[in-house]
Amino acid sequence: MGVAFVAGQYVPISSASIPITDWGFLRSDATYDVVTVWDGAFFRMDAHLERFMRSCQRWRLDPGLTPAQIAEILSQCVRLSGLRSSYVEMICTRGQPPWGSRDPRLALNQFYAFAVPYVWIANEQQRGAGLHVMVSDVQRIPATSVDPSAKNYHWNDLTMGLLGALDAGADSVLLVDAAGNVVEGPGFNVFCVSHGVLVTPNAGMLEGVSRRTVIEMAQSLGLPLQLRDLPADELRAADEVFLSTSGGGVLPVTMVDQRAIGDGTVGAITRQLVQTYWAWHKNPAYSLAIDYAL
Amino acid sequence: MGVAFVAGQYVPISSASIPITDWGFLRSDATYDVVTVWDGAFFRMDAHLERFMRSCQRWRLDPGLTPAQIAEILSQCVRLSGLRSSYVEMICTRGQPPWGSRDPRLALNQFYAFAVPYVWIANEQQRGAGLHVMVSDVQRIPATSVDPSAKNYHWNDLTMGLLGALDAGADSVLLVDAAGNVVEGPGFNVFCVSHGVLVTPNAGMLEGVSRRTVIEMAQSLGLPLQLRDLPADELRAADEVFLSTSGGGVLPVTMVDQRAIGDGTVGAITRQLVQTYWAWHKNPAYSLAIDYAL
Repeated sequence: MGVAFVAGQYVPISSASIPITDWGFLRSDATYDVVTVWDGAFFRMDAHLERFMRSCQRWRLDPGLTPAQIAEILSQCVRLSGLRSSYVEMICTRGQPPWGSRDPRLALNQFYAFAVPYVWIANEQQRGAGLHVMVSDVQRIPATSVDPSAKNYHWNDLTMGLLGALDAGADSVLLVDAAGNVVEGPGFNVFCVSHGVLVTPNAGMLEGVSRRTVIEMAQSLGLPLQLRDLPADELRAADEVFLSTSGGGVLPVTMVDQRAIGDGTVGAITRQLVQTYWAWHKNPAYSLAIDYAL
Repeated sequence: MGVAFVAGQYVPISSASIPITDWGFLRSDATYDVVTVWDGAFFRMDAHLERFMRSCQRWRLDPGLTPAQIAEILSQCVRLSGLRSSYVEMICTRGQPPWGSRDPRLALNQFYAFAVPYVWIANEQQRGAGLHVMVSDVQRIPATSVDPSAKNYHWNDLTMGLLGALDAGADSVLLVDAAGNVVEGPGFNVFCVSHGVLVTPNAGMLEGVSRRTVIEMAQSLGLPLQLRDLPADELRAADEVFLSTSGGGVLPVTMVDQRAIGDGTVGAITRQLVQTYWAWHKNPAYSLAIDYAL
C-alpha cells in the first residue's frame, strides 16, 4: 500500500509512525507538502519542493536536507512502493525540546515522507457528474492567526465543515472568511466561471500548485481570469464551478448548497481545463520520470 | 522518564508512537486533556475527565472508553512510571478512514495516554521572581473558526507568538483577539488584579481547570472577581498579573512588554493564590490518591 521514510529508514506505510511526544503531533507544529506521481512521473516536483522549503522557513523548521536530497528520498519511497500513481507527502515536524524545556528553538526538527496510492478527492462517479459542495458557516482560520500560504495541519475548521456537509448529503465543503467570501475547502482551491471570466480567491487560502496550474492554463488558453474576493452568493450564481487539487486536478462542481450550477452538468470551460490538466502531465517542464529499476 | 498507553499496551514513553497516517497528526484531528499528579495523587481528575469527554463530543470523536476506564488507564501509566509528580495526558484521535476515503465518519478513533515527569511552564527562578511576558500581535485562532472551549492542538499561533517573545528576551507570550483583548498563552490562562479586583477573560480562550480553580479560590477567599474582556493596555497597567496552568498552578508575572507590573515584585494577592493553590491539593474533594503497590 505504500512506503514511508521515518528516522532515516524506508519502512512499509503500515508500520510507519512518529513519536507521540513530537510537537508535530502534540502542538501540530509541522509543515508538509504533497506531490503526485502520475504514470510513473512526478508532476511539478520543483514547485512543491520550493513551496515546502518556504513553508519550513515560515515556521522556522529545518528539514536538514536540501531540495535535491528530499527529491531523492521521495523518489526512493515511490520506487520501493512500485506505485505508478502515487500521493507523495513530505513532512517536517518540530520534534521535541529536551525534557522540561518548552522552547521550540531547542528541538531537533524531524523529516518524514511517504508514498501511498494516488488519493482522489472525488470518486469516478463524482468526477463524471460533478460534485455537490456546501458552503459552510464555519470560517477558515484567518491569516491574522495562521498564515495560510505556509502549509499546515490546522484543519479542525475544514473537518468540522466537512462533517456538516457530509451529514447534509453533500460531497464536500467550502469555507468562508469573516466577510462571507469563499476561500477554500479541505485540500482544494475553488474557481468559478461568471460571464466567461474565471474567478478565484486571492486571500485567506493556500496558494495551491494545482491552483497555479489552472491560472497558467487559463493564460495559455486565453481565458480571462480574475484573482479577487469571491462572495458565496456570486459562487452560487456562477455558470461553472470547479475545484483545483493535487487530489485529482480539476474537479467539476455541478451543485452548490443543493442548487444546480448552470444547467447542472459539467461546463465547457471546466471540461477544457480537465483535459488540459492531464495533457500537461506530458509536458517535460512539469514531468519528472521515476527510474523504477534502480 | 514515563509510560504511555498505545494500541492497548503500556510502553516506555521513549518507544511510544502513533501511526503517521493517523489524522490526529495529518489533520490535527484530535483532542486531549492533561491532569497532573502531585505528591502521589491526581488533582481534580473528575474535572479533567468531564472536559475531555465534552471535547470528544464536540469534535465527534469517540475514545471508546468510559471516564472510569480512562481514569484506570491513566492511573496505570503513573503506577508503572513510578512518578510521584507527573504530567498525564489523555488523547483521542480521528484515526484513519479506509484507504481512498476522506470521510471522517468512517475512521476508527484511537485513544492514547501517557504519564511523564511533571512539566513546569516556568522554572524555579521564574516562579520566584515572576515571569516576563510579551503581548504578541499574533491573534489567537477565533471561535468562529475553532471552538476554543474544546481542547485541540491548533497551536501554530501560540508557537509563532512564543518564538517572537523568546527572541525578544521574554519568558512567554500572551495572544490577543481581533479587538486587542488578551485571551490566553501557550498552555495557560491569564488574570490581573486592578484596584483590588481580579479580572480574567471570558471569551476566546480555553476554560482551564486551573482557571476554574483560581475562580473558586477567589470566591472562597472573598476576592472580587470579574470575567470579561481584558484589553492589553489594562493588563499592562495592572497592579498584579499571573497565569493559571496545569503546568505549575498560579505563576506570577512581574513584567509585561518589558515594563514592570506594580513594583516589579510578586504581589500579595498572587502570593496568597499560589499558597492556596498548593494547599488545595490536600483537599480530598480534589485529590485522588494513587495506589502504587498494585
